[in-house]
Amino acid sequence: MTVQVGILGATGAVGQRFIQLLDDHPIFEIAALTASEQSAGKTYREAAKWRVNTPIPEEIATIEVGRTDPADVSDDVDLLFSSLPSSVAAEVEPAFLEEGYVMSSNSSNDRMADDVPLTIPEINPDHLGLIEVQRDNRGWDGALVKNPNCSTITMVPTLAALDEFGLDRVDVTTLQAVSGAGYSGVTSMEIIDNAIPHIGGEESKMETESRKLLGSFDGAELSMHDASVNASCNRIPTLDGHLESVFVDLADEPSPAEARQALAAYPGIDLPSAPDQLIHVFGDDEPDRPQPRLDRDRAEGMQISVGGVTPTPQGLKYNCLAHNTIRGAAGASVLNGELLVEEGWI
Amino acid sequence: MTVQVGILGATGAVGQRFIQLLDDHPIFEIAALTASEQSAGKTYREAAKWRVNTPIPEEIATIEVGRTDPADVSDDVDLLFSSLPSSVAAEVEPAFLEEGYVMSSNSSNDRMADDVPLTIPEINPDHLGLIEVQRDNRGWDGALVKNPNCSTITMVPTLAALDEFGLDRVDVTTLQAVSGAGYSGVTSMEIIDNAIPHIGGEESKMETESRKLLGSFDGAELSMHDASVNASCNRIPTLDGHLESVFVDLADEPSPAEARQALAAYPGIDLPSAPDQLIHVFGDDEPDRPQPRLDRDRAEGMQISVGGVTPTPQGLKYNCLAHNTIRGAAGASVLNGELLVEEGWI
Amino acid sequence: MTVQVGILGATGAVGQRFIQLLDDHPIFEIAALTASEQSAGKTYREAAKWRVNTPIPEEIATIEVGRTDPADVSDDVDLLFSSLPSSVAAEVEPAFLEEGYVMSSNSSNDRMADDVPLTIPEINPDHLGLIEVQRDNRGWDGALVKNPNCSTITMVPTLAALDEFGLDRVDVTTLQAVSGAGYSGVTSMEIIDNAIPHIGGEESKMETESRKLLGSFDGAELSMHDASVNASCNRIPTLDGHLESVFVDLADEPSPAEARQALAAYPGIDLPSAPDQLIHVFGDDEPDRPQPRLDRDRAEGMQISVGGVTPTPQGLKYNCLAHNTIRGAAGASVLNGELLVEEGWI
Amino acid sequence: MTVQVGILGATGAVGQRFIQLLDDHPIFEIAALTASEQSAGKTYREAAKWRVNTPIPEEIATIEVGRTDPADVSDDVDLLFSSLPSSVAAEVEPAFLEEGYVMSSNSSNDRMADDVPLTIPEINPDHLGLIEVQRDNRGWDGALVKNPNCSTITMVPTLAALDEFGLDRVDVTTLQAVSGAGYSGVTSMEIIDNAIPHIGGEESKMETESRKLLGSFDGAELSMHDASVNASCNRIPTLDGHLESVFVDLADEPSPAEARQALAAYPGIDLPSAPDQLIHVFGDDEPDRPQPRLDRDRAEGMQISVGGVTPTPQGLKYNCLAHNTIRGAAGASVLNGELLVEEGWI
Repeated sequence: MTVQVGILGATGAVGQRFIQLLDDHPIFEIAALTASEQSAGKTYREAAKWRVNTPIPEEIATIEVGRTDPADVSDDVDLLFSSLPSSVAAEVEPAFLEEGYVMSSNSSNDRMADDVPLTIPEINPDHLGLIEVQRDNRGWDGALVKNPNCSTITMVPTLAALDEFGLDRVDVTTLQAVSGAGYSGVTSMEIIDNAIPHIGGEESKMETESRKLLGSFDGAELSMHDASVNASCNRIPTLDGHLESVFVDLADEPSPAEARQALAAYPGIDLPSAPDQLIHVFGDDEPDRPQPRLDRDRAEGMQISVGGVTPTPQGLKYNCLAHNTIRGAAGASVLNGELLVEEGWI
Repeated sequence: MTVQVGILGATGAVGQRFIQLLDDHPIFEIAALTASEQSAGKTYREAAKWRVNTPIPEEIATIEVGRTDPADVSDDVDLLFSSLPSSVAAEVEPAFLEEGYVMSSNSSNDRMADDVPLTIPEINPDHLGLIEVQRDNRGWDGALVKNPNCSTITMVPTLAALDEFGLDRVDVTTLQAVSGAGYSGVTSMEIIDNAIPHIGGEESKMETESRKLLGSFDGAELSMHDASVNASCNRIPTLDGHLESVFVDLADEPSPAEARQALAAYPGIDLPSAPDQLIHVFGDDEPDRPQPRLDRDRAEGMQISVGGVTPTPQGLKYNCLAHNTIRGAAGASVLNGELLVEEGWI
Repeated sequence: MTVQVGILGATGAVGQRFIQLLDDHPIFEIAALTASEQSAGKTYREAAKWRVNTPIPEEIATIEVGRTDPADVSDDVDLLFSSLPSSVAAEVEPAFLEEGYVMSSNSSNDRMADDVPLTIPEINPDHLGLIEVQRDNRGWDGALVKNPNCSTITMVPTLAALDEFGLDRVDVTTLQAVSGAGYSGVTSMEIIDNAIPHIGGEESKMETESRKLLGSFDGAELSMHDASVNASCNRIPTLDGHLESVFVDLADEPSPAEARQALAAYPGIDLPSAPDQLIHVFGDDEPDRPQPRLDRDRAEGMQISVGGVTPTPQGLKYNCLAHNTIRGAAGASVLNGELLVEEGWI
Repeated sequence: MTVQVGILGATGAVGQRFIQLLDDHPIFEIAALTASEQSAGKTYREAAKWRVNTPIPEEIATIEVGRTDPADVSDDVDLLFSSLPSSVAAEVEPAFLEEGYVMSSNSSNDRMADDVPLTIPEINPDHLGLIEVQRDNRGWDGALVKNPNCSTITMVPTLAALDEFGLDRVDVTTLQAVSGAGYSGVTSMEIIDNAIPHIGGEESKMETESRKLLGSFDGAELSMHDASVNASCNRIPTLDGHLESVFVDLADEPSPAEARQALAAYPGIDLPSAPDQLIHVFGDDEPDRPQPRLDRDRAEGMQISVGGVTPTPQGLKYNCLAHNTIRGAAGASVLNGELLVEEGWI
């Protein structure tokens, strides 16, 4: 079975990751690429300033880039991936959904909407059920699923694994890579020999998205998890890989060994891009892990890493890490696309 | 009045900062420099691989470096600054104290000893009273005062200022500069495009030292502050300046404006190296401050900066920053030295 | 004597350096600041995203920024400094010159024009004589003097000093800081863990500007120096300070000692912003100098540093360094402004 | 056919690259690992602080590390790879050669010896004939072949390709990655926001090794190429990949197009680790390539990249790049090992 896919916003940093991840994908075949007006009509090679350190796949390089408009995308396309800037996405995504497209979107608009599933396949695949609600509400033939923000994805699998011990509160501080802001998002003058606190908008995304992801869906309505989540988000001079220091209050006071066991045993999912093991756990013999450069590429960038699990008076502290433009962005959308196929939405 | 001072461990990264800070000091005059065996007998210029970006003061460059031994230090020296590695300091410092020297030490040994004052002059100058206890206990004529670890100093002034609102708990995550590990402490291969979590030993220092600094001294005994302090300590690719993201639980639920007011109004101290204002507070119009490169040099590196003060369900979150080798190390010791003079211990 | 000055393009990276350098200047007093249309009407504090690590001088922060148009600049202004983008400068600078303003410009347009002096005060102050030619040619009452590109300024003083040995050929490779491209010129994604060769346009600037600077002016016409100059220009992940590796063919085969002597003895000039010694020379005992971070701030960023002078079969090789946004940009224009005053053009 | 190999100095940065490259090698099978006294007796996992971002191959992790002594290496081993520090190698390598081992060494000692082949398989495979001379001279049963320094390897293939146009002179400046100095060779305090010129010893290596590599061997004696080679070597803040700016004087004045053609057409060699095309050439449409991070991994890090080919009055200038710890070190030795097998020396 082959699913023809299109990529909206194909020339940007996340768009390039989509192309890298979809090259040789067992199910998906790229059939359409769109970008902004000034790229339309060029070949992808001309339109994209390619910055991934593997060459552009040859058959992609010669595709003509279209405008980001339903009229420019072939009807043969069954699934759209979107990595548009959220301001653009807010306008354009609905036009595709009205036309009946199924879309797995990385853009931040509408993530917290009551009728839009915000999904990590290993964590809350049942939230896809919201698509029925969405179709009822909006009169769409299509379906829209969102993946969370890169900083949220890095942490939420660890919270899901520890929730069995009674998750009450989370204080998380991020050390985020520059690629999270897009190719031109952080200038070199800003970040060399520096760090930038309080990344705009990021903290509230982590605080709300994580509670939606951990929430429960009763078939009709979604309830947010009632843990308190506080986030401080900082940019540091790394290219890829968000490192996060997490303090969790847990009602049941697990030992570090019990917590490590729960993290390592958290079930994966059987989808092509999913890692065999969702969470890699470093033991006490490697206290200085995970590290962005050494660990971001585990399982092709799709695995979460955890280390430094240590008891606190209120629960535990630990560090976690994920590749922000793979597991945290393009890979997250691809995995949601695979789930949509698996669950029969396409 | 001029006080002759000596620097123990004068050739290292913190030692070089001592020399920079004591050049043209209104009270202190450098009269002795010591280092390890292989530096002894050389001029300071020969012995030190000078790495500060202002030249070695000419009158210092020609001083002959002595061994770190009381026999090698002139009796004219009234005050010693120590930036020895803690393993060396643990052996050598007592020898000087038995000889009657007064010492302001940056080394980490003995910081948590019951009879050793751990002091930030603006925060707990009264703890110097422990010197009497120390003399009784140890039979020393001299006096030993310690300053806390660089990561601790960055945060504690903000906690002291907020304690009026009922400080219950602190979850702090640090983004620490490489200079905190000494000149060769972090290799370039380790840290370029990377971050390193769980810095060895650093987290427990922050957790215990901060409670001692905020504790109360009744003239005979010191009681630790009873707040819970949890720390995660990370190294990032910045040269100088520790940035810290702090979550505090406060019983009295101050508004951000009240908190900013308390931080900005926290009293300074009238000593030569102290900044006029201890804490600089950034408002809501500059949410992305403080930043290490832009803010570490405020008030010659002696001021603490705070920004991003935001309410949480339990209290507040904010970011704070200090220059780790000035306010957090050499400058901290110099300030303690000035306090020792002011209070008549020398 | 006080000269009222204006800064065209005052909000950019070089514009901010102008303000830093002119604060407390003995002759110049800032009387006008201009920027693009969207900044006009705001105070300087509002218009500039201030990125220098000393605060904005208070009396400057409240100046209202004007449009970059003669109509918006007071007639009291005697001298203009320009750090406009060259495409803007090419249109706007002539308008000011027609109005009779004297201008010291850092913008790259017109640097190679036959009737525009391209000047480093210590090297070719006599080239200011071209102003008479310029006035004749163009019918201007004003006067336009340019300073060379930052990468050119770093090298040319060393070539001028060595020209007494018969300069035949130069092969120079630069390692340039990111600030040379302006505040947003190099993204962090481009340069972290990377270097970028063949900086657009930079190589030909070095190859032509250096020969003009070293050329001779007979009172009517300028002759270029006839040395062959070949340049390769690379961007590296440093903030400030261009390091350059130079190979020079010299007819007279000086020894390294003779070359070092000629470099160190090259005369400075008696102007407020000029360093006492133009070129600082490192000897064989410090072969790994100059280094950008350690040496860019010598003499407030106005001194050139040279090291590693070594014989080759054809002449010499050595490394040189200057602060690219001070000596190489804003400071260069200020120094030219001081020369214009000294020589009576204002 | 399988050849049992040993790695001398297996725990260092280059040693780890050997292990990465020999994992799943079609001919070579790791049978012995040696390191310093304090590692001997440990498993490789315990002895090495593994820093490559792919996990240690499981079958290697459990090998017991031996001392670097012939007595500790099994007689089944047919070929040794050496990445010992040169001071250690100078003592230890002869002991193995006397025992009859064939050795492909990356260590810098003896590279310029008259009877030691210094070889890049695509450039001068015939120099292996020196092994006969070596055996006669030294009475060894074994054979020692060296690969050049990483900075030399990056440039020499381009010189070999251009030699058909009459290579007269080379002025080369390097921008070298920190991994070239070994894992702890460059501290983060030295290199963040900085560059270091005049790397000790590196310049003379480039100047002499390149002339030996390009020299001719008449079956008895080696003649150095008579071009003049001048090198300036700089360290910059990149992890891997040496970028070099080269100026070449060529007697025949080829056009850039002719030069690019000669570079691209330079023949590869049919060995397992050799790239299909030795030199990748970027055209005028990509003037800002090669770049270390984007191009160091071409052909598994074994390809040389060239770009920015531009005429000069004396010949050409261009930029070239190679992965310094793969093509420039471990991969170079492995390729020489493959050549030794192919040519029947093992």
